Amino acid sequence: MHSIETLQEKIKKAIKSEKFDFKPSELYEPISYTLSLGGKRLRPVLTLMACDFFDGKIKNAIYPAIGIEIFHNFTLLHDDIMDEAPIRRGKETVYKKWDSNIAILSGDVMFALAYKYIAKADKKILPEVLSVFNQTAIQVCEGQQYDMNFETTKNVTIQDYLKMIRLKTAVLLGASLKIGAIIANARNHEKEEIYNFGLNIGLAFQLKDDLLDVFGNEQKFGKKTGNDIITNKKTFLYLKAFELAKNETQQLLKKHFGDTQLENNKKIKVIKEIYEQLKIKEHTEKEIEHFYSEALKNLETINIKDERKTVLKAFAEKLMVRDY
Amino acid sequence: MHSIETLQEKIKKAIKSEKFDFKPSELYEPISYTLSLGGKRLRPVLTLMACDFFDGKIKNAIYPAIGIEIFHNFTLLHDDIMDEAPIRRGKETVYKKWDSNIAILSGDVMFALAYKYIAKADKKILPEVLSVFNQTAIQVCEGQQYDMNFETTKNVTIQDYLKMIRLKTAVLLGASLKIGAIIANARNHEKEEIYNFGLNIGLAFQLKDDLLDVFGNEQKFGKKTGNDIITNKKTFLYLKAFELAKNETQQLLKKHFGDTQLENNKKIKVIKEIYEQLKIKEHTEKEIEHFYSEALKNLETINIKDERKTVLKAFAEKLMVRDY
Repeated sequence: MHSIETLQEKIKKAIKSEKFDFKPSELYEPISYTLSLGGKRLRPVLTLMACDFFDGKIKNAIYPAIGIEIFHNFTLLHDDIMDEAPIRRGKETVYKKWDSNIAILSGDVMFALAYKYIAKADKKILPEVLSVFNQTAIQVCEGQQYDMNFETTKNVTIQDYLKMIRLKTAVLLGASLKIGAIIANARNHEKEEIYNFGLNIGLAFQLKDDLLDVFGNEQKFGKKTGNDIITNKKTFLYLKAFELAKNETQQLLKKHFGDTQLENNKKIKVIKEIYEQLKIKEHTEKEIEHFYSEALKNLETINIKDERKTVLKAFAEKLMVRDY
Repeated sequence: MHSIETLQEKIKKAIKSEKFDFKPSELYEPISYTLSLGGKRLRPVLTLMACDFFDGKIKNAIYPAIGIEIFHNFTLLHDDIMDEAPIRRGKETVYKKWDSNIAILSGDVMFALAYKYIAKADKKILPEVLSVFNQTAIQVCEGQQYDMNFETTKNVTIQDYLKMIRLKTAVLLGASLKIGAIIANARNHEKEEIYNFGLNIGLAFQLKDDLLDVFGNEQKFGKKTGNDIITNKKTFLYLKAFELAKNETQQLLKKHFGDTQLENNKKIKVIKEIYEQLKIKEHTEKEIEHFYSEALKNLETINIKDERKTVLKAFAEKLMVRDY
């Protein structure tokens, strides 16, 4: 079994060694740029980890893992156009640095490249890998569409929200693990359990992100908190607050949440006060804990020695206790 | 051997029977809309035709053929955003009817759906089909980028232009045929020749399009001619004219071509006069004839009875002599 750090190093090195210096440069430079910005490489690490966990050969998982990371970065390129996000990982987004057309087309070619890397999986398991990947790619697009819809939908429920983040974020974590398991020739029920483990970790991960956006330590978080509040994003925190708030508090929440005139810091302060009053931090932590413990249950049902589960558990825990 | 009409009917029926009424509707309605607009279904027909030509079972080619048609329509969705094209096949384009974000994301999900249909190819040949499709998808994006670059590039040569249309248009015709050949278990050199046949037909096809845009019969063409002239598109016709024009004629061409102040009909008239003076119609027809005869040579080298080649030849001829 390899440590998290070893696998992270392996995938970072592998991604770095892939060159995208093809022509026309207008198409490929944004790809090199995006991939050089780094990030946690969460998804490809999960692929390698699952492959290792089920006793597969890590080298067979490297290319599909890179494919998954390229796919993830493609979705960021297009999401940033749609969300008009100027900054990502502390740098200008592709659509800002170049323009929308470049971001659309570079994204498209990244999507094709992702498949090219996925297709390097062993022939015997390629149809199964491809089927998981196709399904996931479609779901991620559906998640992004729901996310955009929510901006103008009035009655978004917590259930709607959980469905959206499941599609937009969690399924790709599940698929990353499952593809690693397929490459390692795991049994069918093991593939399903590791997928569900990823799904639950993914849900907890996104809720943790929502929480950090409001209550994170700015120094450690590396960016200003309160962005979701400023942009009126209907996160779990807001939806829970709206569910729990009564009478005047609910009116106040409604009034201030959609208020585009209110000065940003004032708005963050008011909304945060309501959240504190309603113990939203604790409610969110409870929800995170719920999905986290569901994930651990998924892991328990897999009939593999406990000591082999340490790396996966440690990784999941690392994602949960982070304050960045 | 099936007739062109039979194959066209088969694919039209098959596409029509695929429903995309999933949720969220914002994502899937533009897909149903786009696919319902029809079009010649050129590419999937080529896949079926090649499969039939090499004595394969057409039913094995139907889903991959649909995948190719979905891919082609995905590129149109994104191209129309980049080119700011309001009308396609006589109807509003997706980005106009909905908005750019919808067109980006519906396009993305179409791309994933294209792979889902491609992946229905028989397991034994899937890696080969996928490899051709991946390579082609990447090249089509490269072609579109070159096309956009040419808008601001000063010294585009005829060679540059031919390279661009090879990538943007011709490789997909080649790949459509080759995928049909792979499904039919054709020999390796046969797959290459049918690919090259498609490539040459594709080049001739695009040059014919360029020609019709200037000299087409408006009634039969179904749209106004001269659009490429109005939008200063550096087509084969313009580049050939620029190559042949001397002194004052070249100055005149240069001056009027980039002139955004000149009234549209006046501009078309002036440029068309220069084209006529330089016999650009005849030069373009000669170039089309060249690629068309190269295509027929590709077909000749395939060791299959001449009578089986009739359908492919007839289809190619139909594309060449069309005045729409």
